[in-house]
Amino acid sequence: MPIKSKKNIFYAQSGGVTPVINATAKGIYDEFIKNRKYFGKLFIGKNGIAGALNEEIIDIEKENKTEIDKLIHTPGGAFGSCRIKLKDPKTDQEEFNKILEVFKKYNIGYFLYNGGGDSQDTTSKLSKFFRKNKVDIQCIGIPKTIDNDLPGTYSCPGFGTVAKYIATSTLEASLDVSSMSKSSTKVFILEVMGRHAGWLAAASGVIKGKNKNTPHIILFPEKYFDKDNFLKRTKKSVERDGFCVIVVSEGIRNKKGDFISSSSTRDSFGHAHLGGVAPILANIINSKLGFKVHWAVADYLQRAARHIGSAADVQQAYDVGKQSIKFLTDGVSDIMVTVIRRKNDGSWKTGKIALTKVANKEKKLPSNYINKDGFGITSACLKYIETLIDGESFPPFINGIPDYSKFKLKTIKKLK
Amino acid sequence: MPIKSKKNIFYAQSGGVTPVINATAKGIYDEFIKNRKYFGKLFIGKNGIAGALNEEIIDIEKENKTEIDKLIHTPGGAFGSCRIKLKDPKTDQEEFNKILEVFKKYNIGYFLYNGGGDSQDTTSKLSKFFRKNKVDIQCIGIPKTIDNDLPGTYSCPGFGTVAKYIATSTLEASLDVSSMSKSSTKVFILEVMGRHAGWLAAASGVIKGKNKNTPHIILFPEKYFDKDNFLKRTKKSVERDGFCVIVVSEGIRNKKGDFISSSSTRDSFGHAHLGGVAPILANIINSKLGFKVHWAVADYLQRAARHIGSAADVQQAYDVGKQSIKFLTDGVSDIMVTVIRRKNDGSWKTGKIALTKVANKEKKLPSNYINKDGFGITSACLKYIETLIDGESFPPFINGIPDYSKFKLKTIKKLK
Repeated sequence: MPIKSKKNIFYAQSGGVTPVINATAKGIYDEFIKNRKYFGKLFIGKNGIAGALNEEIIDIEKENKTEIDKLIHTPGGAFGSCRIKLKDPKTDQEEFNKILEVFKKYNIGYFLYNGGGDSQDTTSKLSKFFRKNKVDIQCIGIPKTIDNDLPGTYSCPGFGTVAKYIATSTLEASLDVSSMSKSSTKVFILEVMGRHAGWLAAASGVIKGKNKNTPHIILFPEKYFDKDNFLKRTKKSVERDGFCVIVVSEGIRNKKGDFISSSSTRDSFGHAHLGGVAPILANIINSKLGFKVHWAVADYLQRAARHIGSAADVQQAYDVGKQSIKFLTDGVSDIMVTVIRRKNDGSWKTGKIALTKVANKEKKLPSNYINKDGFGITSACLKYIETLIDGESFPPFINGIPDYSKFKLKTIKKLK
Repeated sequence: MPIKSKKNIFYAQSGGVTPVINATAKGIYDEFIKNRKYFGKLFIGKNGIAGALNEEIIDIEKENKTEIDKLIHTPGGAFGSCRIKLKDPKTDQEEFNKILEVFKKYNIGYFLYNGGGDSQDTTSKLSKFFRKNKVDIQCIGIPKTIDNDLPGTYSCPGFGTVAKYIATSTLEASLDVSSMSKSSTKVFILEVMGRHAGWLAAASGVIKGKNKNTPHIILFPEKYFDKDNFLKRTKKSVERDGFCVIVVSEGIRNKKGDFISSSSTRDSFGHAHLGGVAPILANIINSKLGFKVHWAVADYLQRAARHIGSAADVQQAYDVGKQSIKFLTDGVSDIMVTVIRRKNDGSWKTGKIALTKVANKEKKLPSNYINKDGFGITSACLKYIETLIDGESFPPFINGIPDYSKFKLKTIKKLK
């Protein structure tokens, strides 16, 4: 039970969205309603933390209840997310001061920030800043990232659903190319997301044994790209199975550390904006081996693929949301909610880890998850990913397409 | 009831495969078993018509019954397809003679060819050739193409499922980009298949009204690409809605008739092998308007997307297969099976059309299906496509991924 009862909650979605981040919002909402008497309002930042900086704040209880119920199966960030990296308060306190001012004005006693590594870092810094300024605001980070690269948690909500989509799509495309390979396309390349960690590329490996040796080649950002070895392997797969299926992470680099993808634009975090390594590989194969190549770049199709939701993932996303409110009522602060797998029955529970332990850390694929030749996953990796793509959660459909939430997103009147 | 009872059937899958061509094979198999006493074997060409040319013939009854049952929900061409354009017998009869020789040797009395426009043409020519050589082989074409461009049928099995995938994916990606657009990506481009007909691009239009004005722009191969107008429209959409979602058909061309996609390789039919127009558009937008752009190329992911099957499409695919066997027992020949929609209750039935009326003809989007500004679909088009994406047919899943057919594909011993 919170001491500072009736204070308002400020929740924001941050960074690249996922197919299940709204399920987390639904978990927060449901638990908030259950504990309604302890809190003031559940405010949500429009477009993430920008909603605090610009005083664009949504009162969730003003939105249509039917649309709120659909959050559980709606992809994207229903309230808007953002790619804003807050400046370090050690060098520039302007943004932190603005947030503090807004939080004071709107009587915020609780801050819930739903994001990846950068966002956990921001939450940790904000919490320190609030304490330094003697303002009592409980700060809790909630994990979210399709990249599955947050430490301290069994898994990151969002990954399981995208992994399920990638595994399914790789299997389907492999059936397509294997049926055409005798007289036409010999190689299919699928480019998936993953800047530094190969979790999503690894997900394609769970189809091993379902259609010959597909995927024949997985290219991980954890391994440097060796063109000669890659071409040798491609040729061997075509000779043995008649075709070759390749899954490549957007973030693969050569031995020098340069991205194979040629794009050089950068996002606001300074990360190179990638995409387009598949056509480069297609060109290499076609010019060196002469095979007809087809390629696909999944991009947002994967990140938003809620139509093939993993039941395990949706459940975890919902549970971490619920748990964040429980932690608030328990007076807990400065932690990120985590996912814990019970070994005895494979069920899930939630836990916590200090924000300082997760901030700005990346969990890459462990070396024992990549097989010896560097082009595939081990059975340990397969078993791990299978736990996260388990079960199907399909959205309801109307007239042939999914029935997703549609909000008005009206912001409350700015206070003076 | 066939006069030439106990003769064998030869069935082959041809051209680019679809997510439901195996449902057609299942319809053929089920009706064949029901009429088992009238026929000899149900032979299937391994890798399409190449199976006849190379005498690589599968006896479906030698395959595992459990795997046969899974055909109804398995994408790709389970028995192999091919891109072989048979030479015109007027100039070169070698292939036709070989097929005739093999069909005589294996006591074939019935030929079922499952493909698009080129394949219907081949079926028609083979039938004439058999008659000219006084060999009694009933020839029936079965429609299949995700491009939906065969005339004489309400729809082409394969299109509905891919249309459902494209509409769903466009909606999902639009929710993703709209949540990120305030501080990051402003434009999302999805490239879909469709060399000359814009049916698949049009499918994205059915999400109109589900998320602001998405898709803001559809680029059809039926309209030439006007760069200035396109950029104006993109800018306007970003200014009004904060973001812009674009769906582009791989086959768009400029006013001169040149493909916007730069690739110049060609398939065995002499069609330009396309793909990669999305990154070209992304570059145009980024350099001229300065917006951050994300793009996806769906390629085989769309053509094999059985995990989000349209129930209407699967039913049609199954029914045209069944009907082809019924036509054989009725002594019908030289026709393609068609799909007919009953206006009163919207249910489906099958019909037929003379092969000569469909061979080598392409049904493009009618002009009243594209709206006045050329960037969207009309309500007539929307209503038509909605009939084909109706209902969900999900495959069964095991350990998180679909449970698709896996055949041995052992060919029978070659006869001397």
